[in-house]
Amino acid sequence: MKNIPESANNDEYFKSYEDLEVHELMLLDVERTTAYGNAIRQNEELFKDKIVMDIGCGTGILSVFCAQAGAKKVFAIEASNVAGICEEVVAENNLENIIDVFHGKVEDFQLPADINGVDIIVSEWMGFYLLHESMLESFLFARDNFLNKDGLLFPDTASIYTAPCQLPQMFELWEEYLGVRMTSFRQRLREQKSTKPEIVPLSAEQLLHSGELMSWIDLKTVCQEDVDNISETFFMLSESHGNFQGVCIWFECTFPSSSDQTPITLSTSPGQPATHWKQTVIVLPEISVLTVEPNEAIAYELSIKRNKSTARGYTLQLDQIDADEIDHPIPCDCIMTKCILFKAHLKKLENGQLEDDDDEELEEEQDENSENKETTLRN
Amino acid sequence: MKNIPESANNDEYFKSYEDLEVHELMLLDVERTTAYGNAIRQNEELFKDKIVMDIGCGTGILSVFCAQAGAKKVFAIEASNVAGICEEVVAENNLENIIDVFHGKVEDFQLPADINGVDIIVSEWMGFYLLHESMLESFLFARDNFLNKDGLLFPDTASIYTAPCQLPQMFELWEEYLGVRMTSFRQRLREQKSTKPEIVPLSAEQLLHSGELMSWIDLKTVCQEDVDNISETFFMLSESHGNFQGVCIWFECTFPSSSDQTPITLSTSPGQPATHWKQTVIVLPEISVLTVEPNEAIAYELSIKRNKSTARGYTLQLDQIDADEIDHPIPCDCIMTKCILFKAHLKKLENGQLEDDDDEELEEEQDENSENKETTLRN
Repeated sequence: MKNIPESANNDEYFKSYEDLEVHELMLLDVERTTAYGNAIRQNEELFKDKIVMDIGCGTGILSVFCAQAGAKKVFAIEASNVAGICEEVVAENNLENIIDVFHGKVEDFQLPADINGVDIIVSEWMGFYLLHESMLESFLFARDNFLNKDGLLFPDTASIYTAPCQLPQMFELWEEYLGVRMTSFRQRLREQKSTKPEIVPLSAEQLLHSGELMSWIDLKTVCQEDVDNISETFFMLSESHGNFQGVCIWFECTFPSSSDQTPITLSTSPGQPATHWKQTVIVLPEISVLTVEPNEAIAYELSIKRNKSTARGYTLQLDQIDADEIDHPIPCDCIMTKCILFKAHLKKLENGQLEDDDDEELEEEQDENSENKETTLRN
Repeated sequence: MKNIPESANNDEYFKSYEDLEVHELMLLDVERTTAYGNAIRQNEELFKDKIVMDIGCGTGILSVFCAQAGAKKVFAIEASNVAGICEEVVAENNLENIIDVFHGKVEDFQLPADINGVDIIVSEWMGFYLLHESMLESFLFARDNFLNKDGLLFPDTASIYTAPCQLPQMFELWEEYLGVRMTSFRQRLREQKSTKPEIVPLSAEQLLHSGELMSWIDLKTVCQEDVDNISETFFMLSESHGNFQGVCIWFECTFPSSSDQTPITLSTSPGQPATHWKQTVIVLPEISVLTVEPNEAIAYELSIKRNKSTARGYTLQLDQIDADEIDHPIPCDCIMTKCILFKAHLKKLENGQLEDDDDEELEEEQDENSENKETTLRN
């Protein structure tokens, strides 16, 4: 193992990775580790005789995967003292000739003089809701400083999704829990939890919508600034009857593959097998909860903004939008009268049944809709 | 809510119970909460018009159960500031006239002048491996100072069990995890974990024996000193083929019941539905692991000893005993040659087939057994 000199490894963030139970948790996340294992070992064609860099290699399992897939050289870089264990793992797999372990930050790393760049960068840098921990920055630093032109990133895309969800365990459950009313406990619990997003496992049934893309990130071209402040407005039609009690966030990553292989996706969606990332949930205040019907519109603005003071943290902000107060797409399948009217109107148009005065009425309808939550059918 | 004066509530232990997610975890432990709920509400006969004390009432759910079961008065005592939430829960269940909430330690509590004692003490005082946290002491203090003669304790018995177990996730798993040898990681992980017992969920299949009683505690009569140092030697025959890699500890509590009701048991055994206590496991050093056959003897000494310095903590100590080196019961069903011989001898005796010289040979056999791990059949 080589020590990368300079800019001391005294970061609290790296200290947290000295707890081996954190590594146990990550390794035993079979979905995570197998996704990387498959993405690497099923694509020997991509790795054969290549120079690879593994950033934040931890115990080194991804570096071993790369060597097993035929890499000529792997630079395994780990800032925490777990680098020492990585060195031992490399030895017990008899890969000392292929994997070089470096203890230090990738920002301080220098390639050997005879190597100009690496062919592939592998890293498991993702945090809760993808961006928590901000390790992406080191991944992008390595891409910009070490990756050869036409080099590959594992993973090479990342997507953040969101959907409105039901959280019965945080709401209805306490109305009468085992025969006891506990709404005051619920309220205090909610207050305690309101300062941070919840990291909880959700079932697909808890989602009111299968989810919309919040951000698609091409890791080959993205800059850190592009993901410092992601903000989107969402308009979705509820896919079931239920209570809009929170907003769920999850992510997916995809990996490059050779032409004869199906690309591997690592998904942390509620519909997929559980991972240690679980899902991230922003819980609505009780007063904001809405009961929704199938096809009822739900709207909110969600932003994920990097903190200036503690650069590894992000602030998640959710602003609910009254779906009755905003413009809906045209046509819209929701159950609001104006949208039903527009659709009927459109259908008549298609069928050539429209009479002249129908048009005027619809315009009036549209004008009034911005004030009225419920529009009434006047014909 | 009344504040109990004196001896400030500045104990770090009580501070830890100000985290409402701890209460959420306990409440959502359905096995735990339902066991208390059933033990109390299915025994209205015992609670009707009785004076009850709930020690460490937390959010107050057990106090509400008691009131629902017909208690005339419940003194709900909570040392942490969660007493304030308990007061609110009592109010939303309209039980202010029955449940009096006290913020403070039971050791500082005084009964109202017109009440001489309580008829029932309810408390969920159990920690990991029963005794962790040492809240039992407060339960016994209340019993000795406030419980009427012939009063009832909920629960009134507690039992600690132990069994040898297999821990593949801590041993075999890392021999080749997803195609990578990671025994060096395992070793370091084990070193990190060796300072404290593991609190993990075990399946019944991981047990090599269905378990033996380590300590049966009659809560009506036990003194704190009786449980300050529990130490027992165990001799068990493995019930399956497997690797003796650790020792599992769990507990059960039983509750009083009226004559027409089945007594309720709260069990934290690996064979029962999971609770938040999970199981406590002492992991053996790798060098001590034994592969055992069905009916092979396993022996160990286990002690649970209260720490003198930090009175809420206990030290668990496991000493492995070479089962070949100790006296086995007579007869013994184990697979050691001497025990097989004794059993055969006994059978002959029973069948009246014994000849004179057989006796002498067996005596010799017995003498040699303390030296020999394997005795050989000489006839």
